[in-house]
Amino acid sequence: MKYNRSYNFSAGPAMMPEPVLEEIALELMNYNGSGMCVMEMSHRSKVFIDIAAQAEADLRKLMGIPDNYKVLFVQGGGTLQFAMVPINLLKDGVACYVETGTWSKKAISEAKKYGQVKVVASSADKNFSYIPDCSDLDIPENCDYVYICENETINGTTFPKLPNTKGHVLVSDQSSMFLSRPCDVSKYGLIWAGVQKNVGPAGMAVVIIREDLLKEDLPEYVPTYMSYKTHADNDSMYNTPNCWAIYCCGKVFRYLLDNGGLEAMAARNEEKAAVLYDYLDQSELFKGTVVKEDRSLMNVPFSTGDKDIDADVVAETKKAGFDNLKGHRSIGGLRASIYNAMPKEGVEALVAFLKEYEESHK
Amino acid sequence: MKYNRSYNFSAGPAMMPEPVLEEIALELMNYNGSGMCVMEMSHRSKVFIDIAAQAEADLRKLMGIPDNYKVLFVQGGGTLQFAMVPINLLKDGVACYVETGTWSKKAISEAKKYGQVKVVASSADKNFSYIPDCSDLDIPENCDYVYICENETINGTTFPKLPNTKGHVLVSDQSSMFLSRPCDVSKYGLIWAGVQKNVGPAGMAVVIIREDLLKEDLPEYVPTYMSYKTHADNDSMYNTPNCWAIYCCGKVFRYLLDNGGLEAMAARNEEKAAVLYDYLDQSELFKGTVVKEDRSLMNVPFSTGDKDIDADVVAETKKAGFDNLKGHRSIGGLRASIYNAMPKEGVEALVAFLKEYEESHK
Repeated sequence: MKYNRSYNFSAGPAMMPEPVLEEIALELMNYNGSGMCVMEMSHRSKVFIDIAAQAEADLRKLMGIPDNYKVLFVQGGGTLQFAMVPINLLKDGVACYVETGTWSKKAISEAKKYGQVKVVASSADKNFSYIPDCSDLDIPENCDYVYICENETINGTTFPKLPNTKGHVLVSDQSSMFLSRPCDVSKYGLIWAGVQKNVGPAGMAVVIIREDLLKEDLPEYVPTYMSYKTHADNDSMYNTPNCWAIYCCGKVFRYLLDNGGLEAMAARNEEKAAVLYDYLDQSELFKGTVVKEDRSLMNVPFSTGDKDIDADVVAETKKAGFDNLKGHRSIGGLRASIYNAMPKEGVEALVAFLKEYEESHK
Repeated sequence: MKYNRSYNFSAGPAMMPEPVLEEIALELMNYNGSGMCVMEMSHRSKVFIDIAAQAEADLRKLMGIPDNYKVLFVQGGGTLQFAMVPINLLKDGVACYVETGTWSKKAISEAKKYGQVKVVASSADKNFSYIPDCSDLDIPENCDYVYICENETINGTTFPKLPNTKGHVLVSDQSSMFLSRPCDVSKYGLIWAGVQKNVGPAGMAVVIIREDLLKEDLPEYVPTYMSYKTHADNDSMYNTPNCWAIYCCGKVFRYLLDNGGLEAMAARNEEKAAVLYDYLDQSELFKGTVVKEDRSLMNVPFSTGDKDIDADVVAETKKAGFDNLKGHRSIGGLRASIYNAMPKEGVEALVAFLKEYEESHK
């Protein structure tokens, strides 16, 4: 480890690819002969507009985003998206939500401010340890959209397949699985993702929205900033965007393209997660908390079933140089977030550590 | 110029202090032995919480912020603040605005969505080239706040003294003059500033708000993110903040403290601006567009009075290695933004260039 960097299992903000950080460091005092750092550039200057346009073009290529979708770079994170989605997409109908954990619950509670919300499926009965069957949901005729949190960061679940929305618009929060595998964008009306988990620095969400969903006639109380159309009509530069995040995310998009794209990422992520899940499946001390078929490849919660032992393991991982393995307070136990940028060696080192811990505590 | 950096006169994002950028570059691969870049840190980790706490403490020291004020770091820039201010501060009364240019006009138009707005003074009659007399404004009894844009970035004006609010709450947009000189925070109810002009990277606003103005009972339609109280109650970490901006701004706060604080900055800025204004005052070709007593020390618009010559000067400055001197489209001409981080040598070089241009075009 050239820079003595640690294996950081944070749920987000999280690891970024080391070669991307190296490029950023090299360009920090003077980007590409421009005479300035990207942080110092006018967002209206040609040099920055080129950076932003390239980032968008690379993301479109990476995900195969169809031409009738807009790509927006918006500040305010998930918390603002929880409100922006219903404000922009809920008309006089019903918003249908699938409740699968902490983040869908937050989305539901915010949406209720803006109209009628129906929870069409939930896994609350088993502490969100699985994804409910979404093949035949009771969706009303006047449904404006069906909303899912496709990967629940805290609970460690991923939808094994998309819900049957019966022809209604599908909205997905992909924050903690964004760009971790191929995605058929045409199946969605809107995808949004906070970039601070699987892409770059905190402070920006990417929104991919089908053009026909951009609404003109929002209620008067809606802040200008919260209209998707405001951002779409101005190429995400109605106001000064988070330029630094656009630049860093653009570098990651390019890095992924240069390293086999999302197919390669998916293969890598499956292999990597298997190292950890295979160990957990045969361990007598540690157990994963999610049913097998709905497990996330990105966020892996596990536990010994004993609070004190869990706390001891967390303390020991910290001493051994692994960071941020403590589980979220709502679930307890441990959680390893192993996004795109976590090397397989990091997961192998963690498993070796857990094995040794188990061995020495028999 | 060690890194071959240019003199960048952008109105924002804009120059940052070179020693600060050098520190950031050095820490990029591994911050202070943490094993990670600041962009990769969990915002709930001790190492990042310490960075944010230090940034706030340094800002408090720098500005002498009284204990009964909260300091918030919020995403969404000025556009979101234009809505957040009335949403949080306008009760059943009237919001009074002083109209001095582009940015106060935007603030006024957004505030009208949320209640009664009264423009109590305006300099629209002379294309916003001065600050109206605010010593005896017609402020109604039920005024909830008086709002000013204390430095109009585009128009190049600064309030020479604060308005007489007759005991009502003063709200100030200080974006383009933030930390450029000492500020008696106790005279304000709320100060906000987008940091991308005089401090750090775009994507964050600092809000300094007197605690008694934090409201509990906002209307139901208000997104959770837009309540100042949400941010205040959670030390700006209700959701993942723009961690990178907090880190970079913290470095600038520290740099200002280490270099004499705001008194020293004010002296430096006066001296620097005088170099340009003294030249403009005696030039036969170029004229400043603002009346002398209301001139901004940060944004200096000027013009030859002839569109074609202005365009030629802009083109020539670009060739000579000066960046972003084109005036805003609403004013035309040229504009030199000379924030804290612009060295005096940059202004001297610009004046030398303008002199030569004038000489050779007689």
